[in-house]
Amino acid sequence: MKKVFFILSVLLIFVGCETEKPSLKNKKIVKTNDFAIVIHGGAGTILKKNMTVETETAYKAKLEEAIKVGHAILKNGGTSTEAVMQTIQVMEESPLFNAGKGAVFTHEETNELDASFMDGKTLNAGAVAGVTNVKSPIELAIKVMTDSDHVMLSGKGASIFAKEKGLEIVDPSYFYTERRFKSLQRIKNKNKTELDHDDKKAAFYDADIKNAKFGTVGCVALDKNGNIAAGTSTGGMTNKRWGRIGDAPIIGSGTYANNKTCGVSSTGWGEYFIRSQVAYDISAQMEYQNKSLKAATTDVIQNKLTKLGGTGGVVALDKNGNMSFEFNTAGMYRASMDDKGILIVKIYKE
Amino acid sequence: MKKVFFILSVLLIFVGCETEKPSLKNKKIVKTNDFAIVIHGGAGTILKKNMTVETETAYKAKLEEAIKVGHAILKNGGTSTEAVMQTIQVMEESPLFNAGKGAVFTHEETNELDASFMDGKTLNAGAVAGVTNVKSPIELAIKVMTDSDHVMLSGKGASIFAKEKGLEIVDPSYFYTERRFKSLQRIKNKNKTELDHDDKKAAFYDADIKNAKFGTVGCVALDKNGNIAAGTSTGGMTNKRWGRIGDAPIIGSGTYANNKTCGVSSTGWGEYFIRSQVAYDISAQMEYQNKSLKAATTDVIQNKLTKLGGTGGVVALDKNGNMSFEFNTAGMYRASMDDKGILIVKIYKE
Repeated sequence: MKKVFFILSVLLIFVGCETEKPSLKNKKIVKTNDFAIVIHGGAGTILKKNMTVETETAYKAKLEEAIKVGHAILKNGGTSTEAVMQTIQVMEESPLFNAGKGAVFTHEETNELDASFMDGKTLNAGAVAGVTNVKSPIELAIKVMTDSDHVMLSGKGASIFAKEKGLEIVDPSYFYTERRFKSLQRIKNKNKTELDHDDKKAAFYDADIKNAKFGTVGCVALDKNGNIAAGTSTGGMTNKRWGRIGDAPIIGSGTYANNKTCGVSSTGWGEYFIRSQVAYDISAQMEYQNKSLKAATTDVIQNKLTKLGGTGGVVALDKNGNMSFEFNTAGMYRASMDDKGILIVKIYKE
Repeated sequence: MKKVFFILSVLLIFVGCETEKPSLKNKKIVKTNDFAIVIHGGAGTILKKNMTVETETAYKAKLEEAIKVGHAILKNGGTSTEAVMQTIQVMEESPLFNAGKGAVFTHEETNELDASFMDGKTLNAGAVAGVTNVKSPIELAIKVMTDSDHVMLSGKGASIFAKEKGLEIVDPSYFYTERRFKSLQRIKNKNKTELDHDDKKAAFYDADIKNAKFGTVGCVALDKNGNIAAGTSTGGMTNKRWGRIGDAPIIGSGTYANNKTCGVSSTGWGEYFIRSQVAYDISAQMEYQNKSLKAATTDVIQNKLTKLGGTGGVVALDKNGNMSFEFNTAGMYRASMDDKGILIVKIYKE
């Protein structure tokens, strides 16, 4: 009889407490990777049936080229900041992505670039919005962090700062690509011919725009010293007007990093990413609910963001080198490399 | 003997689970107020010894005038959105505060205004940065939310949008006040004469600038339908350069609202409020840790923000009409009114 009561009491304790102790579940800390790097080149309606073999090969090759640059820096003991910057610069310089060269055009036929960066060690951050003549927006975002007391600079002021700090200034035509310009004209013509069509709606629900705007690039890196850095760079939305700023330059929405939890870079329908606080929310769930990176990214993207109506995805890394690629679109250009040098490059849902 | 085992098992359950169930502590939901409103007019080194009786009276009278406008709307069954807008507009139109008329000057001797707004029911939001000729930046932020698919517009583009939507456009000289202009000149002269003084540092540690920049206004309201709205409006920082954007127009940093948790409006050293994700972090602690509004605001301002080196404060309201005024500066212009019509207006720490 004593035995029965003893078993009963143990059982009751188990039943009563198990669900209340998520903190105990993660107690064993396993360092998956000493260093690691993840990148994205945008998420959206990326379908295999619409893709030529040549295009697919070009994207995969560029993702591989970019991530290998960052991985080499990390392997050699470099900082996550340097790895994120140089990796993103490879993608900014490629016309394949909607960032730097290859950025989409605004309604006024200009390219206005946004970027942000966060250092998980110091929680310092830098961001720029609406830059038109700075070759590397991600480098400028980092410069804002390191060389000013500000977090966010915008427009002409940000360009003046870039010049003062000796960053490479280019003629705005540097960012021109025929493909993106034609894409803008196609959308403008569509709006002209569909006068009864709500212009606002067209900007969001038109497949041309949706696909074009989902080309943001981003990178998260964990270095050998345990420092996480995250960065994001974009040209924003095709045909954007009124000085629209999306989530890419918004700390907490497009980019977040904290050595205590994780680093995140977002890509998608920026307005929903701001309203959902996507990047910081992943960190908050890890910090306050003791969730794993996988559980937090899944909830934020598949549950919260999806319920609100937002589309897109994130790449993320936690402090133990675990990786997450979470998106609710057909595809997301993405790649990862771990401390063993294992490279994975993917585009579609698999 | 059976009894002993029974008591033991109950005790064990109690000991094992008690600390893991914060959720049970707040189970009794007490509706403190059916509707309520809180406002701030900036936080900073506001000391009684530096204040004349006339100035103190003027600030208190304006805070009272503003909050009574919003309170009357709520009492009559109006929306929290309308209450927040009209309350903030009273402060925007007053030269006492660093928002709308009375905004501080940029390095280029212009006034560049930022504002943001969030609706706790829909989690929709609107924000503007660097506006120079729209009389009411908070009205424009709300218009961005209701009349565009965007969350954030900036610069000239935001002004074009305002004009298209029929908002009141003013000559930039409307925002001029002699007091703020003299303040800029004083700071510029100081920088000139103190050549060995780090210009960046001066911008942040100079008492003139510090006090001038802490004049942001904000409001959070809970209406009879249980909808929370929050808004913030500012001129930013005196002598600001490079198109600097602070926390006021950043959703999650300067402003956040969610009917599930709370509404928050921030004021202070914007860069730290962005890095700390102040407004959303309060909501996240309530949602994920089941903290009370008071516990969450205290942790975010007195612990997390202070540790990082940031100064300022927030006003906040939760879904049950509880209020919080949390700041780590000498003072914060603030007021509250509850559903019984009880008005409290304060400036210093008390």
